[in-house]
Amino acid sequence: MDGLCYGGDYNPEQWPEEVWHEDVALMREAGVNLVTVGVFSWASLEPSPGRFAFDRLDRVLGLLDAGEVKVNLATPTASPPPWFGLAHPDALPVTADGTRLTHGSRDTYCVCAPPYLEASVRVARALAERYRGHPALAMWHVHNEYGTWCHCDHVAAAFRDWLRTRHGSLDALNDAWTTAFWSQAYGDWDQIMPPRATQYLPNPAQALDFRRFLSDAMLGHYRAQKAVLRELTPDVPVTTNFVFGSWVPVNNWEWAREVDLVAIDHYPDDRERAAEQTAFAADLARAWAGGRPWLLMEQAAGIVYSGARMRAKRPGETALHSLQHVARGSRGAMFFQWRASRGGAELWHGGMVPHAGPGSRVFREIRDLGRLLPRLAEVPGDAAVLADAAILWDPESWWALESPGLPSREAGYLDALHQAHRVLWRGGVTADFAHPSSDLRAYPVVLVPSLYLVSDATARNLARYVEHGGTLVVSFLSGVADEHARVRLGGHPGALRDLLGVRVDEFLPLEEPVAILLHGDDEPLTVSGSVWSERVEPRGATALGWYEGGDLDGLPAITRHRHGAGQAFYVSTRLDDDAYAAVLAAAGVPSAPVPPGVELVRRSGGGAGWLFALNHTAAGHEVAVAGTDLVTGRETRGVLRLPPRGVAVVRTLGIAPG
Amino acid sequence: MDGLCYGGDYNPEQWPEEVWHEDVALMREAGVNLVTVGVFSWASLEPSPGRFAFDRLDRVLGLLDAGEVKVNLATPTASPPPWFGLAHPDALPVTADGTRLTHGSRDTYCVCAPPYLEASVRVARALAERYRGHPALAMWHVHNEYGTWCHCDHVAAAFRDWLRTRHGSLDALNDAWTTAFWSQAYGDWDQIMPPRATQYLPNPAQALDFRRFLSDAMLGHYRAQKAVLRELTPDVPVTTNFVFGSWVPVNNWEWAREVDLVAIDHYPDDRERAAEQTAFAADLARAWAGGRPWLLMEQAAGIVYSGARMRAKRPGETALHSLQHVARGSRGAMFFQWRASRGGAELWHGGMVPHAGPGSRVFREIRDLGRLLPRLAEVPGDAAVLADAAILWDPESWWALESPGLPSREAGYLDALHQAHRVLWRGGVTADFAHPSSDLRAYPVVLVPSLYLVSDATARNLARYVEHGGTLVVSFLSGVADEHARVRLGGHPGALRDLLGVRVDEFLPLEEPVAILLHGDDEPLTVSGSVWSERVEPRGATALGWYEGGDLDGLPAITRHRHGAGQAFYVSTRLDDDAYAAVLAAAGVPSAPVPPGVELVRRSGGGAGWLFALNHTAAGHEVAVAGTDLVTGRETRGVLRLPPRGVAVVRTLGIAPG
Amino acid sequence: MDGLCYGGDYNPEQWPEEVWHEDVALMREAGVNLVTVGVFSWASLEPSPGRFAFDRLDRVLGLLDAGEVKVNLATPTASPPPWFGLAHPDALPVTADGTRLTHGSRDTYCVCAPPYLEASVRVARALAERYRGHPALAMWHVHNEYGTWCHCDHVAAAFRDWLRTRHGSLDALNDAWTTAFWSQAYGDWDQIMPPRATQYLPNPAQALDFRRFLSDAMLGHYRAQKAVLRELTPDVPVTTNFVFGSWVPVNNWEWAREVDLVAIDHYPDDRERAAEQTAFAADLARAWAGGRPWLLMEQAAGIVYSGARMRAKRPGETALHSLQHVARGSRGAMFFQWRASRGGAELWHGGMVPHAGPGSRVFREIRDLGRLLPRLAEVPGDAAVLADAAILWDPESWWALESPGLPSREAGYLDALHQAHRVLWRGGVTADFAHPSSDLRAYPVVLVPSLYLVSDATARNLARYVEHGGTLVVSFLSGVADEHARVRLGGHPGALRDLLGVRVDEFLPLEEPVAILLHGDDEPLTVSGSVWSERVEPRGATALGWYEGGDLDGLPAITRHRHGAGQAFYVSTRLDDDAYAAVLAAAGVPSAPVPPGVELVRRSGGGAGWLFALNHTAAGHEVAVAGTDLVTGRETRGVLRLPPRGVAVVRTLGIAPG
Repeated sequence: MDGLCYGGDYNPEQWPEEVWHEDVALMREAGVNLVTVGVFSWASLEPSPGRFAFDRLDRVLGLLDAGEVKVNLATPTASPPPWFGLAHPDALPVTADGTRLTHGSRDTYCVCAPPYLEASVRVARALAERYRGHPALAMWHVHNEYGTWCHCDHVAAAFRDWLRTRHGSLDALNDAWTTAFWSQAYGDWDQIMPPRATQYLPNPAQALDFRRFLSDAMLGHYRAQKAVLRELTPDVPVTTNFVFGSWVPVNNWEWAREVDLVAIDHYPDDRERAAEQTAFAADLARAWAGGRPWLLMEQAAGIVYSGARMRAKRPGETALHSLQHVARGSRGAMFFQWRASRGGAELWHGGMVPHAGPGSRVFREIRDLGRLLPRLAEVPGDAAVLADAAILWDPESWWALESPGLPSREAGYLDALHQAHRVLWRGGVTADFAHPSSDLRAYPVVLVPSLYLVSDATARNLARYVEHGGTLVVSFLSGVADEHARVRLGGHPGALRDLLGVRVDEFLPLEEPVAILLHGDDEPLTVSGSVWSERVEPRGATALGWYEGGDLDGLPAITRHRHGAGQAFYVSTRLDDDAYAAVLAAAGVPSAPVPPGVELVRRSGGGAGWLFALNHTAAGHEVAVAGTDLVTGRETRGVLRLPPRGVAVVRTLGIAPG
Repeated sequence: MDGLCYGGDYNPEQWPEEVWHEDVALMREAGVNLVTVGVFSWASLEPSPGRFAFDRLDRVLGLLDAGEVKVNLATPTASPPPWFGLAHPDALPVTADGTRLTHGSRDTYCVCAPPYLEASVRVARALAERYRGHPALAMWHVHNEYGTWCHCDHVAAAFRDWLRTRHGSLDALNDAWTTAFWSQAYGDWDQIMPPRATQYLPNPAQALDFRRFLSDAMLGHYRAQKAVLRELTPDVPVTTNFVFGSWVPVNNWEWAREVDLVAIDHYPDDRERAAEQTAFAADLARAWAGGRPWLLMEQAAGIVYSGARMRAKRPGETALHSLQHVARGSRGAMFFQWRASRGGAELWHGGMVPHAGPGSRVFREIRDLGRLLPRLAEVPGDAAVLADAAILWDPESWWALESPGLPSREAGYLDALHQAHRVLWRGGVTADFAHPSSDLRAYPVVLVPSLYLVSDATARNLARYVEHGGTLVVSFLSGVADEHARVRLGGHPGALRDLLGVRVDEFLPLEEPVAILLHGDDEPLTVSGSVWSERVEPRGATALGWYEGGDLDGLPAITRHRHGAGQAFYVSTRLDDDAYAAVLAAAGVPSAPVPPGVELVRRSGGGAGWLFALNHTAAGHEVAVAGTDLVTGRETRGVLRLPPRGVAVVRTLGIAPG
Repeated sequence: MDGLCYGGDYNPEQWPEEVWHEDVALMREAGVNLVTVGVFSWASLEPSPGRFAFDRLDRVLGLLDAGEVKVNLATPTASPPPWFGLAHPDALPVTADGTRLTHGSRDTYCVCAPPYLEASVRVARALAERYRGHPALAMWHVHNEYGTWCHCDHVAAAFRDWLRTRHGSLDALNDAWTTAFWSQAYGDWDQIMPPRATQYLPNPAQALDFRRFLSDAMLGHYRAQKAVLRELTPDVPVTTNFVFGSWVPVNNWEWAREVDLVAIDHYPDDRERAAEQTAFAADLARAWAGGRPWLLMEQAAGIVYSGARMRAKRPGETALHSLQHVARGSRGAMFFQWRASRGGAELWHGGMVPHAGPGSRVFREIRDLGRLLPRLAEVPGDAAVLADAAILWDPESWWALESPGLPSREAGYLDALHQAHRVLWRGGVTADFAHPSSDLRAYPVVLVPSLYLVSDATARNLARYVEHGGTLVVSFLSGVADEHARVRLGGHPGALRDLLGVRVDEFLPLEEPVAILLHGDDEPLTVSGSVWSERVEPRGATALGWYEGGDLDGLPAITRHRHGAGQAFYVSTRLDDDAYAAVLAAAGVPSAPVPPGVELVRRSGGGAGWLFALNHTAAGHEVAVAGTDLVTGRETRGVLRLPPRGVAVVRTLGIAPG
C-alpha cells in the first residue's frame, strides 16, 4: 500500500449485519484504510469439518471494498473451532505435566500434530481460492501471535527429528547437552523427550534447544500456509504478527526472513514507562525488518488489556505511541480491534470504537490520528532512521538466561536490554538493535548487555569490530557460555576475555547493593551496583570503576581495554541508570540532551530529512529545529513549540543520510 | 422449637461410649437443647455398601432424648466413606485440569454422578425410616456446606442439559456467550464443556453459567434428599447449612426457598473486624430468610480455625457474636463442634468443650451463654429487625466480577459490599440486604455496590424505586453488563445511565490513589479515591465530587441525579470509609452516632420493642435507653451501663415497628 | 582412613581423558586423599539394561590409585539413565495429584517399585564384583541424598504393608488416625492410600505415618544395596550421604544405625548466618553418629548453589566452615564437586576446581586447606566434643508440625530448633543434640523446643532427668500430642503438664508481638514475645515472666517448676534471642562470653585437649588460651591472636574430658 496503513482487526462476525454498515462509515470518518479480517473466524468460515461458508465474509469484503478499505486477510488458524479439538484430541496442546488442554479459549493447538497442519493448510487454501483477485485483498495475515507450547508425543517425535538435524549424531547431542552429568546420556534418539515434568532441575541445554525447536516448528506451520498462499496469490504479501511476551519461543531474526513485511503487536504494560517500552519494541521491529519497512499490526486503543488491571492510555498517548512507531519505520498504525467486543474473553480489550461508541474520547483520538497520518505521506517508507549506537539482541541468550539453575534470577536478560535502551533513549540517543553476527562497523558504539551465549564466530565478529575502531560496552553475564549453554572454561567472560582484557575467576551475586567508585571523564563519583558483582582481574584493561567495601573492596568493577583501533569496556555489575550513562559517556556515546520525556527521531531519504518530535510530558517544550512541521503545515522558524503531549514531524532540508 | 436453640455439632462416633454420658451431663449444665448429629457419620452408619449399622446412633439419640436435648439429624452425604469412591471412581470430583481427587478428606463427591445421588438418597431414606417418630428428632440437616466443584464427564452432560433449558437453542447460547469471538461457536451441544483447563483466557459467560449450573446441580442433590425426608417425616423441618466462602457457587436467594429454615455457618477470619463480619453475615442470612426466622448453625467456640493461623476469640466474644446473630433474627446460637476432636483434619477447630475440658475459659463462657439465652425467650422469633437502609446483594454479579479478564482484580465485589455494610454499621445504621428485583419501597436509601450484572427488569425496578421517592447510591462497576455478562453498549453504566443521569465513556483503573474534592453538606473536603476512576459526563446529574489532578482533573467523580420523586447518586471511584459516609450523609442516610465498637439493633413485634446493645470494646459505655434489661433483669432508668464486652437486651415498650 | 579425609565428588565421565591426568595432579597439589566416584555414572556404567561398561571407571580408579587418592565408590542409583524409566514407567515417581514424572533430571525413581529395586541391586552387585579388592576402594557410598517422594500404586501397596506392621489391626489404625472424624474409617486395608490429592484438608496422622513410611521404604532400598556390598566386600565401610532439606522424609536417628559412618551434605543458604547454620548441621551429624566419628561428605567450594541466587563464599569461609565441621567431629572435609561442570543442571554449582580453573581464589583456598588439614592429624577421631547443654531433636515432631491444619504456620519446628541452637552458639556454649528417649543425665541443661509429639515413654524419660537434678527448658507446642499426633486432653502441654507444673487451657497465636515482663536474675526487663501465646495456669510452678497487655495481660508467660532434684522451665511464647538467652541464664546455662563471631570448640581425648578457635569476622581477635597452635605451630603464650577470618587449633594440655 502507498502511504501509511491505518486501521485494526475487524471481527464483524460478532455483530449483526446492520452494524457492518455503520462500521464502514465510521472507518471512512476515521481515515481507516486497512483492516485485518478473519483472525478468529475459523468457526464461522468452516462451521463443520470441510464445509466452508463464505457468504458472510463475501459480504464483509464487498462492503469494505466499496468503502475503499483494504483487507489484510487472516488465516484463522490461531483459534480452532470446538469441533476441531473434539475430532482431533491429539492436536490439543499438552502441558509439561501432561495435562491435555481443552478448547474454550484461543491458541489450543499443537503445531506438530498432523491433523492440525492439514486443517490449517486446508482452510488457508480455501480462503486463497475464494479471495484471490478480490480487489480488497491487500495482504495475508497468517495465524496470530505464534507462541503456543506443547509437550505431546507429536512434539516429542518432531523434536527428535529436529535434534538429529541440529546435532547430527547422538554423541554430539550428548556432548552438547552435557548428559554425562546426572546420568542422562541418551542411548537412542527415542529416549529424548520434550522437557516434561521431572523430579528436580531439568537440563538447561535441553530447555534451550526446545525453545529453538519450538520456534522452528511454528515456523514450519507458517511456511506451509505461506506456500499455499504464494501459490495461489503470488503477488499478495504474506506476513504474521510477532508478539512480545516472556513465554514466546520465537526467534524473530529467523522469522523475519520468512515474512514479506515484519509486523508486530505491542502492548506497553508499564504506565510510567510506556513511551520507553514503545521505542524499545519499535527499534526491535526495525532491526528484525533489516532496514525494510515494517508495520505495527496491533496496539490498544484507549486501554491496554492486562490480566490484573487494565491500563487506560492517557489523552494523547494513542497518537504519541503510534507516531513513535511510524518515526521508527512502521508503515502505519494498526490496532486490536476495530470495535470492542461485548462479550468473550477479551471484552475489556480496548477498541477503536469502544463500548461507549463513537461519542467517546477514544474514538475522537482515533479519528484525529486518522487525519494526521496522511500528512506524513511524503516520508518514504525506506527513509533511514538515524541511529548513533547499536545494542545487541539475541533471543537465544535470553532463553538461556531463563533456564532454571542460573546464578541469579535477578540478573535477567530483558532487564539488561531494557536498561541499555532506556539509558540511551533518555539521553536522546536513537539506537538500533543488531544481531551479534551482523556487521557493526556503521556504529561508533555497540552495547552488549548480558550476551550469555557467544559462539566463536560471534566472538570473532566483535573483536573485528573493535579492531577496526569500534567501541564496545559489554556488561556482566556476557560471553560466559558457548552456543550449547556450556560455560567456557579458563575464566569469564569466556569468549570475550581477550577482547576485554580481563579475566574473572568468580561471580558474586549481590543481595544488597554495593558502592562503586567511578572515575569517568569528570571527577570521581560514588554510584551503586546491584544484583551482581565479579572478581575482575585486569589483563591489559585499565580500571575506571572500583568496588568499595564488601568482599571485592578495591578491586576493579568497570574496565576499559584498548584493542586494535578501538576499545572495549566491561561493566561487571548492574549500575544504576545514571552511572550507566556515565560509562556510556566515557565510551564516547554522543550526548544529545533533550528535556526529559521529549523524544526526537531523525529520518532521511531521497535527499530529504525529517525530525519526529514527540512530547510525552504534560508541559510544553521547545526544540531548536528549522523546517516545516508536516502536522501543522507551519514553518518552525528555528524553534519548534511542542504542546503538551504534542507531536510534530519537521521536514529539515539538508540533512544527509548517515 | 420454642425459645432459642443452643448447642452444636455432636460427633460421638469419635469418642468411647463413656464420654457420651459426660457429654449429656455437660450439655445440661451448659443449657444445650439442640445438637446436630451425624454430619460425618456415613462410614459409621453404612460401614459397607448397603449395610447399615444404627445401634450406636440409636443409643446416642436415646441418651440425648433422656437428657432433653433435641436432635438436628444430619444426612451424612458431605463426607462419603472410603468404600464409596473406590466402588464408584466416577463419582469422585475432577479438577479443571483433569485430576480426579481421592478420598482422604471430606467433600470428595460429584453431585452429578448418578452413583452418588443414589447412595445419598439411600442413606437419607434409611435414616428417615429408622428415626421417623423418634422423640428427639427436631430437624433434618441435609448434607453439609454444599460447595464442591467438579469438571467430570457427568458434570459436562448435566451442564449441557442445564444450558439447553436456560438458553433454549444453540444459537441463543452462542449469542449469550459471544462465542463469535475467538472462534468458539458451538455447532452441537455435545461440544460444550465445563470450563476445563485451556490454553489462555476462558469465556467469562461460560464461567458465569457454570457457577449458576453448579448451584442448581447441588440444589438438585439437596432436593432429592429433601423429597424422601418429607415423604417419611412430613412434619420435620428440613434445612442445610449455608457456608460463606469465595469459592462457593451457591445462589442463596434460590436455595433459601427450598429450606424450611435458613441456616448459616459463620467463621469471622479478621480479628479486628470480626464484629463487622458477623453483622454482615447475619444481615445476609436474615435477607435470605426473607423475614422468617433463621439459625446460626455453626460458629467456633474459643478459636476460629484457619489454614495459616488460628484466631482465638477474645473473652466475651463468644457471647457477643452469638448475640449479634440473635439480635438479627437467628433463632439461636449453634457451634461446630460440641467437643474438639483429638485427631483428624480439624483437630484444632475449637469445640464448646475444648481439649482442655470443661475446666477452661471456653467452656465457662459456653455455660454462661447457655444461661443467658433463655432470658431472651420473650423476643418473638418473628420480631422485625428495624433497618434504615438496604444494600443490594447479587451473587451472580459477584461471580461475574470474579471472572478472569476483568478490568481490575482489585475492584472486587465483596470489598465493595463489605465497605457499604461497614460504613453503615460504624454509623450506627442497621441495614438489610435485598435482592435487586425485590420491592425496595420500604427503604429510604438503597446502596448498590458494584452491581455488575443488571437485567432490563432490574433496571426498571431500580428506576421505579427512585421515581417513587427512593434514594439510590450506586457505586462503580454497576449496571455495566447484562445477565450474560455482555457489556451494555453506548456508555456506562449501561442499564443505569438514564437513572443516574450520567454517561461514562471510559474506565481508568487506578494504580495510585487520586484526590477527590467532595462537596457534601458541609464545607468542601479533599478525600481519597482508589482502585478505580471513570470519565463521567453528567447528563442531567449534578456533581458533588470532582477528581483533582491526574488524567481526570476537574471532571466529576460523584454525582446526584433527581429522578421522579427521588434521587440517584453515582460514585465512580472507591472512596475511603469516611468519604463514603459523607456521601451517604448527603444521600440522607440517618445519622445514629454510637461510640465506636458499640452496636445497637432494634427489634419490634407483638406491640413490644427491644434494643440489643453490644459492647465490642474493652471499655464501659453508656447508652440512653429506658426499659428492662433482660440479661440482668434490671431497669435502666434511662441509661444503660454496658460493661466492657458486655451485652444487654432492653425491653423498650412503646416502640412501633418500622 | 587415617587422618582427615579431603576431597570431593569426582565425576570424570564429564571430561575427556586428558583432563583426568590434570585432575590427579591437581588433587595431589591440593592434598586430596579421597574422592567420591560414580554417583551419577549409571548411564555410563550400564549404557543399556544389563550391559556393563567398566573400562572407563577402571582407568579412573587406576589413575587415582597411582596418585594415592582413595575412592569412596558410589552406587549410581540416585540417577537412573533414560533407558530405565522408559523400560519401567511404573518405577517413575508420581506426584500427589497423579502426574507421573519423566526422566530428564536426577532422583526420578520410586523406591517401592520392584524393577527399580532389582536394577539398583544389580548395578551395586556389578560394581562390588568388579572392584572388590581394588587398592583404591576405601568406602561405599550408596545412592545419593535419599529423599524422593512417590504416591504411585507400588507405594500404596507398600504403605499398607508398613501400616499393618505398625498398627497391627485396622481398628488400631482407625483409632490412631482418628478416622471417625470426617467419615474416613477404613473397612479394608486396600482402601488406604498415600496422601494423594483430595478435596480438602488431609488427615494429619496419615501424613505423619506416610513420612515415617517413606523413611523406612528408602531405608529398605539402602539396606538391599548394603547387603550385597557387605557380602562381597565385608571390610569396606558402607554409608550414604544425608541431606538437609525441609522435604526430606528421612529419620536420621534410625538411618544412622545402618551406616558405618554418618555422612552429611551441608549447604548453608543464609549468607549472614552461614556459620551458625554450619555449627547446627555439624552438631546434628555428631548427634546422629552417637559419639562415633562422622564425615562432611559434601559442601560447596566457592559458591553455594541455590535456585534463586548463588551465594559466593567469602574469602576464608571455605576453611572456616570446614574447620567448624572438623571441630565438631567430622573426619574430614569433602566437597561437591571436584571440578565444576561445564553444562548440565548444576553447571553453576561450585567446584574445587572452578570454571576459571586452578588459577582462582577458590582453588587457592582449596589448596591451602589441603595443606592445613594434615596438621590436625594428632586430634583423634574419637576425641570428645565438650558440650555444656543438649537440645532435643525429633524429626517426627518436625513432620507433625509441618501438617496442614496446625494452629499457626509461623510456629515452625525448625525455627524453634535454630533459635535454641543459635542462642547457645552466640553465647559461646557448645551444644549436643539428643534424641528425646536418650539418657540426658550428662547434661546440666536440656532445651526442648516445640517437641510436639511426646510419647508416654518420652514423658517419663524427661521427668526422670529432672528428678535426678536436670534442668529442662521447654518451649511452647511441646508435649501437646501423642505419637499419633492426637492431642492429649485435659490441658496442655499434655504429657509434660505435671513435670512443668502448669496447665494451659488455651492457645492464642499472635498476629502482633506482645510485651513480656521478665524477672530473671537481674532487674525486670520488658522483652518481646511473638507468634504464639498461651493461657498458662501455674499448678506448682512459679512465674518468671508475665504477659503485659493483650488478652493475657498479667498472666504468666514463663514459669519455673522445681521437680525432684531439678527444675523445669516453660516458655509459652517465642521470645526474641536476648530474652531467650536471659531465660537460659536463669536456668543456669553457663555463660561463656566470646566476641561476636568468634567460635570456640573444645575437644578432648587420650589425655589431651584441643581448642578449635574460629574467627568468622573481618577483624582480628584475641583469645586467652595457652598451648600450641597446630595451624601455625606456634605457642600462644597465653593469648591466641586470631587474624580476620582466621582459624587455630590449640593443643591445651591438662584439660580433662567433661
